[in-house]
Amino acid sequence: MSDPGVRAYDSMRVGPDGGRRVEHVAIEEPMEVRVNGVPFAVVMRTPGADRDLAAGFLLAEDVIQSAGEIGLIEYCLDADDEGRANVLNVTVLGDAICRLDERLSNRRQVIMTASCGLCGRRTIESLRARVASVEGAWTVGASVVASMPQTLRSAQRVFDATGGLHAAGLFDLDGRLLLMAEDVGRHNAVDKVAGRMLLEGRLPLSRTMLQVSGRTSFELVQKALLAGIPLIAAVSAPSSLAVDLAREVGITLCGFVRGDSFNVYANEGRVDR
Amino acid sequence: MSDPGVRAYDSMRVGPDGGRRVEHVAIEEPMEVRVNGVPFAVVMRTPGADRDLAAGFLLAEDVIQSAGEIGLIEYCLDADDEGRANVLNVTVLGDAICRLDERLSNRRQVIMTASCGLCGRRTIESLRARVASVEGAWTVGASVVASMPQTLRSAQRVFDATGGLHAAGLFDLDGRLLLMAEDVGRHNAVDKVAGRMLLEGRLPLSRTMLQVSGRTSFELVQKALLAGIPLIAAVSAPSSLAVDLAREVGITLCGFVRGDSFNVYANEGRVDR
Repeated sequence: MSDPGVRAYDSMRVGPDGGRRVEHVAIEEPMEVRVNGVPFAVVMRTPGADRDLAAGFLLAEDVIQSAGEIGLIEYCLDADDEGRANVLNVTVLGDAICRLDERLSNRRQVIMTASCGLCGRRTIESLRARVASVEGAWTVGASVVASMPQTLRSAQRVFDATGGLHAAGLFDLDGRLLLMAEDVGRHNAVDKVAGRMLLEGRLPLSRTMLQVSGRTSFELVQKALLAGIPLIAAVSAPSSLAVDLAREVGITLCGFVRGDSFNVYANEGRVDR
Repeated sequence: MSDPGVRAYDSMRVGPDGGRRVEHVAIEEPMEVRVNGVPFAVVMRTPGADRDLAAGFLLAEDVIQSAGEIGLIEYCLDADDEGRANVLNVTVLGDAICRLDERLSNRRQVIMTASCGLCGRRTIESLRARVASVEGAWTVGASVVASMPQTLRSAQRVFDATGGLHAAGLFDLDGRLLLMAEDVGRHNAVDKVAGRMLLEGRLPLSRTMLQVSGRTSFELVQKALLAGIPLIAAVSAPSSLAVDLAREVGITLCGFVRGDSFNVYANEGRVDR
């Protein structure tokens, strides 16, 4: 693929149309935004239009208000990122300098977050959680994995009313729903499920599976890792970093779980075909 | 509705099945998480299972690792939040205190974010952007609004390969696509579009419309506001706070734009039926 936003992964298709195949996955990579040389934020993004993203992000953060307040936007190629252009420095001018100071000092007090699980981490390396891998020496039938989306969907009360909620469900190895949560934020739904089990003293969740209603990002895999959940199944696609992290820490990652088929992007040994 | 996660809004259905109706929208509200009395984060969430969310969030932030590290999780009903229970204090014990200190000091250096547009704001009131309202004294035909999702979808290259990308498209008032961006993060896609236009010196975008591939949250409306975009159309549902903010600042908010029908939740005067 010549498209810079896409990476090919060897994966396993499970179902009537099963077999080994190459799946194309949207790339997710961290981009550090520095403002006047000072680290400001790290954004998980798909590479491409990085300068636009940096400018739009600083507009949304209310640091800049017009093009005239931007001097240069440059990649820091000397950064320790294996030569990849994942660090951008934005030089801001005039009133934007005052707004920057104000934002940085406000940040010291409290963080606003959509519960992305990434706030405050310094580099991609520090994003790796302290847990090196999950435990979970078991297998599950493909039909059990395939059944989870419908079970979760049937339990979604608020979605029925609004059509607008993400859901996360925790299942046992027989495909029974143990617990579910809904939220406008997909990360929140997973936090609610993991948090409940933590409060009940049931971590690590070594004999459970997590079903989510949307896509799988790096952060979701990280949340499953910290809760000790060995299998994640999603109705939609994973990102590249989700696949990379799942492979590294021993999590089975299933995507496009629809009807009686799905893809397994990582640690397929847990799925009995 | 007795469901605490849902609010009813008077809205306008446009299309063959058109007319005024009440739509149920998933509630989005900020919840401030304090740890040992210190403000730690504000999470935009759907109320319900708040203690679970706070515990799961602090697990994902690697502040707590087990139930034994949590003393109490209590609502701060004295907080200035009009009596709503939107501030939770979590008392943490033992090693969690050290991890908390570490996280708070790391945060002073750099913020990790999925580009939610909310990082670092102190309270919900400070989330209100400095821009009080959008300009845009025009109307657009319903059929133009209805045509945008298909136009945007046709332009999505990476989605075609991966099925995993959010998209944002900026349209002129004749429904022509001016610019589009794709990203694993839906907020990033909007930031890329707004950022490009900012860099070209074209803000405020008073004669444009924004189409997004997913749902509409508070943050997305805020981003449109800062870019001066008077109309947002989404393929899926808005959150309650998205509707509230759109109404307040004069943004026309359309949802469930599918086929030849859609809902208008705010400032319907811009849509010619």
